[in-house]
Amino acid sequence: MAKRKPKTNERAAAKPMSELSPADRKTLTALTGLGERVIACAERSRPPHLDIPSRTLSNVRFNQSKRILEMGSGTNRRELFNLSQAKAYMQTLLVGTGAKRLIEQGKTTSLRGLYYMLKHTIEGTKEETFDEQGESDSMIEDAEVLLNALREELHLYAQKRGEMVGPITVIDSGDEIDCTRMGSGGYGIPSIVEPDRIQFRNCKATFILHVEKDTVWQRFNEDKFWRKHNCILTHGAGQPPRGVRRMLYRLNAELGLPIYCVLDNDPWGYYIYSVIKQGSINLAYESKRMAIPSVRFLGLRSIDFERCRLTPSVQIRLNDQDRKRAKQIAGYPWFANKRPWQKEIDLMLKNGFKLEVESLISKDISYVTEEYVPTRLAESDFLD
Amino acid sequence: MAKRKPKTNERAAAKPMSELSPADRKTLTALTGLGERVIACAERSRPPHLDIPSRTLSNVRFNQSKRILEMGSGTNRRELFNLSQAKAYMQTLLVGTGAKRLIEQGKTTSLRGLYYMLKHTIEGTKEETFDEQGESDSMIEDAEVLLNALREELHLYAQKRGEMVGPITVIDSGDEIDCTRMGSGGYGIPSIVEPDRIQFRNCKATFILHVEKDTVWQRFNEDKFWRKHNCILTHGAGQPPRGVRRMLYRLNAELGLPIYCVLDNDPWGYYIYSVIKQGSINLAYESKRMAIPSVRFLGLRSIDFERCRLTPSVQIRLNDQDRKRAKQIAGYPWFANKRPWQKEIDLMLKNGFKLEVESLISKDISYVTEEYVPTRLAESDFLD
Repeated sequence: MAKRKPKTNERAAAKPMSELSPADRKTLTALTGLGERVIACAERSRPPHLDIPSRTLSNVRFNQSKRILEMGSGTNRRELFNLSQAKAYMQTLLVGTGAKRLIEQGKTTSLRGLYYMLKHTIEGTKEETFDEQGESDSMIEDAEVLLNALREELHLYAQKRGEMVGPITVIDSGDEIDCTRMGSGGYGIPSIVEPDRIQFRNCKATFILHVEKDTVWQRFNEDKFWRKHNCILTHGAGQPPRGVRRMLYRLNAELGLPIYCVLDNDPWGYYIYSVIKQGSINLAYESKRMAIPSVRFLGLRSIDFERCRLTPSVQIRLNDQDRKRAKQIAGYPWFANKRPWQKEIDLMLKNGFKLEVESLISKDISYVTEEYVPTRLAESDFLD
Repeated sequence: MAKRKPKTNERAAAKPMSELSPADRKTLTALTGLGERVIACAERSRPPHLDIPSRTLSNVRFNQSKRILEMGSGTNRRELFNLSQAKAYMQTLLVGTGAKRLIEQGKTTSLRGLYYMLKHTIEGTKEETFDEQGESDSMIEDAEVLLNALREELHLYAQKRGEMVGPITVIDSGDEIDCTRMGSGGYGIPSIVEPDRIQFRNCKATFILHVEKDTVWQRFNEDKFWRKHNCILTHGAGQPPRGVRRMLYRLNAELGLPIYCVLDNDPWGYYIYSVIKQGSINLAYESKRMAIPSVRFLGLRSIDFERCRLTPSVQIRLNDQDRKRAKQIAGYPWFANKRPWQKEIDLMLKNGFKLEVESLISKDISYVTEEYVPTRLAESDFLD
């Protein structure tokens, strides 16, 4: 076989271990360990394999005492000398190699970037290492569980969504960002918010208000809600991306700030809440570093149509899919034995309609910031 | 008919005209004029009507000397006393009323917010003012052409996307934002960037590099490209939203900064370029305040597969839709008589594949920031 010329990106200078952050050193050690186990197998003439914690639903359980989703102990073996597993085995190690290179170079890339970095025709064949990005994405998830490292620790970022504003200073890659002086916008929450990149200073806030949508968040920001109520105001542009969840987790865990969520009165709103609180079923392994069991649901509530005397014009009829999802969510173990949540979901089904946070605009453009949320906060009227 | 109780949001305090910004005063005057013309009709016992500039394709033309898309002089009459037009007439005036209220209160809202603000059951009927948000969105576009005001001047915002970073200070609603000190992120470009809210200070940049995607922009930001090349670095998270286009327009028009675009080598990349440069066909009336005829296309180019010696692994096959779109774009009047563009699109079709900017990562993770873009800039190698 012809000797392969090193590609440009393999020639880039690697930082010595001593210049890396403690977090990077830890991840790099896990990655190196992975490689060393392959060598050990080879030296003992044993077939190399990986035991990858299983990411299937059957290996996910709700930990009642910690109140988060966790992975069970099931693993799947992936062997090099097994025709049906050889490609996946090679792909897993390739992802590990890519992450190692990124950490050593002190650079980060997107999931798509890593796909392009690792995609090539295997020499002497017409076979591609990866045919589609979906394949490398799936291997990244395997690498996360195998190495017990978040993908952010593997130096991989996602698209950025979500913002924050309020009385706190964020040190981001050495720059001081005063989140009370962000103009009409907010501090864009990065995809990677690990402690070696992001630190907190001068937090004067007493709680966090997390709002579902960008456009609703703008109303709160324009009305300077965070100043009047001395809080940090965040949004996740819908289902919050990992960076936002991890940021909320850190603000809660490190600064002890309670978190209240303002989400739509619909199954999607419930689901967003469920993911922030317990973690996601698909990526249960990340819960221990992202799920926030103490988070609370402030509204909208199914009683709000009556309670706030809204016009029938704002009702949005539930469709079959909504009803199905609502029942599914009501059956989740972490909702199943909570009477207030059962009543909440029941009432929505009985109403036959859902309500968006924006529907409160029909009362007044600032009703949500001046009446709705302040009243709920004053009365400690939340769902847990 | 029972007398209607005023809704909460109609009771909110209005700012006196003297406290409004000059831009708001101008928009409010246009809105008031609209109402006065209705009264004048009523007093002369004439049926009220609106002559709304037509937003159809046939009323759009490419102005060769200004090099932007413009609306023609065609209008459609909308009459109150015409059964098929009465509802649309009423909806247009409702949108005007909503905008007037927002300006007077000094508040802004989203398109969805305005929909909820104006939606109600018409008294004595079962008819809703708007059944779906699509209806109010369309009326907002009518109001824009009718009043010669951008929707941002009507105090309506869209979802925020896009960021900027580089040697410039932005004054946003009174807060000074130093765009060289934004950490791992950037200044999130607001949806409304009109001069009464956003001003520029201390610009030391000599050009703007506009990148298509958030994830690619992060590579440029991490490599501090803007510092090495003394430029402002922006992205629009795909097709740039109006706020980003208006920001680029203002930076170009007010500070004289030339703009270079780094977009994918595919029909979607060409289209993004076309909209930034000439304006969009659907919203031609906004071109005169958003289109930037001097903008240039830096890459990716169809010759890059050969020129950069890329691996075949990064090719993405063109599908039928791609081929159709490419031919359509080649036929646009503003591309039709440009030989370099015709060659560019021809070569992509001949190649049979498209290339994403990320494909350059196959060379090296920083190839795009350290070699590709610097070389194009040094050689002034652009498409116009």
